[in-house]
Amino acid sequence: MNPPTNEQNTVYQNPAKSTDAIGVFDSGIGGLTVLKTLAQEFLKENFIYLGDTARLPYGTKSPETIFNYSQQIIEYLISRKVKAIVIACNSASSHYKKKEFSGIPVYNVIEPGARMALRTSITKRIGILGTRATVNSQSYPTAIHQIDATAEVFQAACPLLVPLAEEGWIDDPITNLITYRYVQGLSQYNVDTMVLGCTHYPILKAAIQKAASNRVQLVESGAALTEILNEELQLGNWPANHQESSSRYIEVLTTDRSEHFQKWAQEILHPLRISDYDGVDF
Amino acid sequence: MNPPTNEQNTVYQNPAKSTDAIGVFDSGIGGLTVLKTLAQEFLKENFIYLGDTARLPYGTKSPETIFNYSQQIIEYLISRKVKAIVIACNSASSHYKKKEFSGIPVYNVIEPGARMALRTSITKRIGILGTRATVNSQSYPTAIHQIDATAEVFQAACPLLVPLAEEGWIDDPITNLITYRYVQGLSQYNVDTMVLGCTHYPILKAAIQKAASNRVQLVESGAALTEILNEELQLGNWPANHQESSSRYIEVLTTDRSEHFQKWAQEILHPLRISDYDGVDF
Repeated sequence: MNPPTNEQNTVYQNPAKSTDAIGVFDSGIGGLTVLKTLAQEFLKENFIYLGDTARLPYGTKSPETIFNYSQQIIEYLISRKVKAIVIACNSASSHYKKKEFSGIPVYNVIEPGARMALRTSITKRIGILGTRATVNSQSYPTAIHQIDATAEVFQAACPLLVPLAEEGWIDDPITNLITYRYVQGLSQYNVDTMVLGCTHYPILKAAIQKAASNRVQLVESGAALTEILNEELQLGNWPANHQESSSRYIEVLTTDRSEHFQKWAQEILHPLRISDYDGVDF
Repeated sequence: MNPPTNEQNTVYQNPAKSTDAIGVFDSGIGGLTVLKTLAQEFLKENFIYLGDTARLPYGTKSPETIFNYSQQIIEYLISRKVKAIVIACNSASSHYKKKEFSGIPVYNVIEPGARMALRTSITKRIGILGTRATVNSQSYPTAIHQIDATAEVFQAACPLLVPLAEEGWIDDPITNLITYRYVQGLSQYNVDTMVLGCTHYPILKAAIQKAASNRVQLVESGAALTEILNEELQLGNWPANHQESSSRYIEVLTTDRSEHFQKWAQEILHPLRISDYDGVDF
């Protein structure tokens, strides 16, 4: 087994100011689970979140389309003066591999998730639950095998989990049934660790844990990203903010303006408070 | 009860040639159920179908976004020289009310569906199954009440039916359970007719019929549009093609290029043959 390598550990000449926000984006609501984890870890940081709700979901779209959308959003976030960018979307992370843009580091969820899965797993039999796009991209198997070529990786595409989470059927027998069917696709291989390979899935974590049995460890993107961002902070790749926690802002933007999203955003981020909710067009 | 009025019965100076195609569009695969019905009824007509798969689904997006996407697609179809345009998408039909563009008639699925539902229903208690966008728009209740103000209309938003149809879980106990839950929301009101208010739903017709009981009549957009197009043809609002059926073409375009869509398109349209499958960008 090779030591865990992390391509993201390059030291950048980050041109940003410490008071600049951390930009986080996703195709929709899923990335809010990542935003919440990061905002609860980095209490003094400002955040700008962009949910590309007008074009969601990314999970069923082609690699080219997903890359182009990601590029557009990153350019927008750069124009808003962010000091780091987090792709809080597995489908986008699978198809956007650049590590920096205009000197600003870009972090995706794949390598951090792969690293954490390998550290968590004892048997090195790892399952990936993801959208069709993420599974087809082979991003997780590739990232895991780059660290440990002997690990065995099994994948299950779960297209219904995102709409179930968005429908709000969280604690529901139907959700349990569907989740069980998807998770069984991995359980049959005796994996001891499953990566929640879509940032919507933490919303359904209880159902997934129930279907997977308690002895299976679940790896979440938010926790994996927290780890990487802490390491990168130590390396000086982005400057920490030292303002009072009480004065930090969390701005949430969407490319659509649906009330459904705003309601959900508040619910997922609770008890965090959204400072500003607005729309943006591409 | 007022006589069924049909705003679409205006005689246009349609500038198109009879050999021009009929343009049909939807956010994705759903409209293919309409395309199939129309192509099987109008055997000598050419068709250009556009599935806006890069931006699907429309059902969760805002009215402004849906209107803008529809307008873009209609302009594209006009540039491709079509003689009539069919909005084979309930969400788009709910938010795009123009009846013509550059002299080319634009037909939506709402008024035809409303008319057919009223003609089908004996008790005038009508249920609507639709996406969240279609239900929130109140398009069907409004269209039905414009014809018969005494009819009682009940709606159920069914966000999971589209992803279930796209997942291909057609004959499946989970699909039956979810469909039953949604349909029960209408059955409790003793409706005798249900409008399949999303062009994906005919794919799940068997499950919906089972959940609704056999005495409930289901109204499909494809059949309702066939009726309107035949009336409009008689009125001279679009010119019929007189070519041999064997030489007609059915072109299918998507804004994304996923293999998933192509596979599904062939399956839904079978036994019809796609003459050309290609991508288009907006």
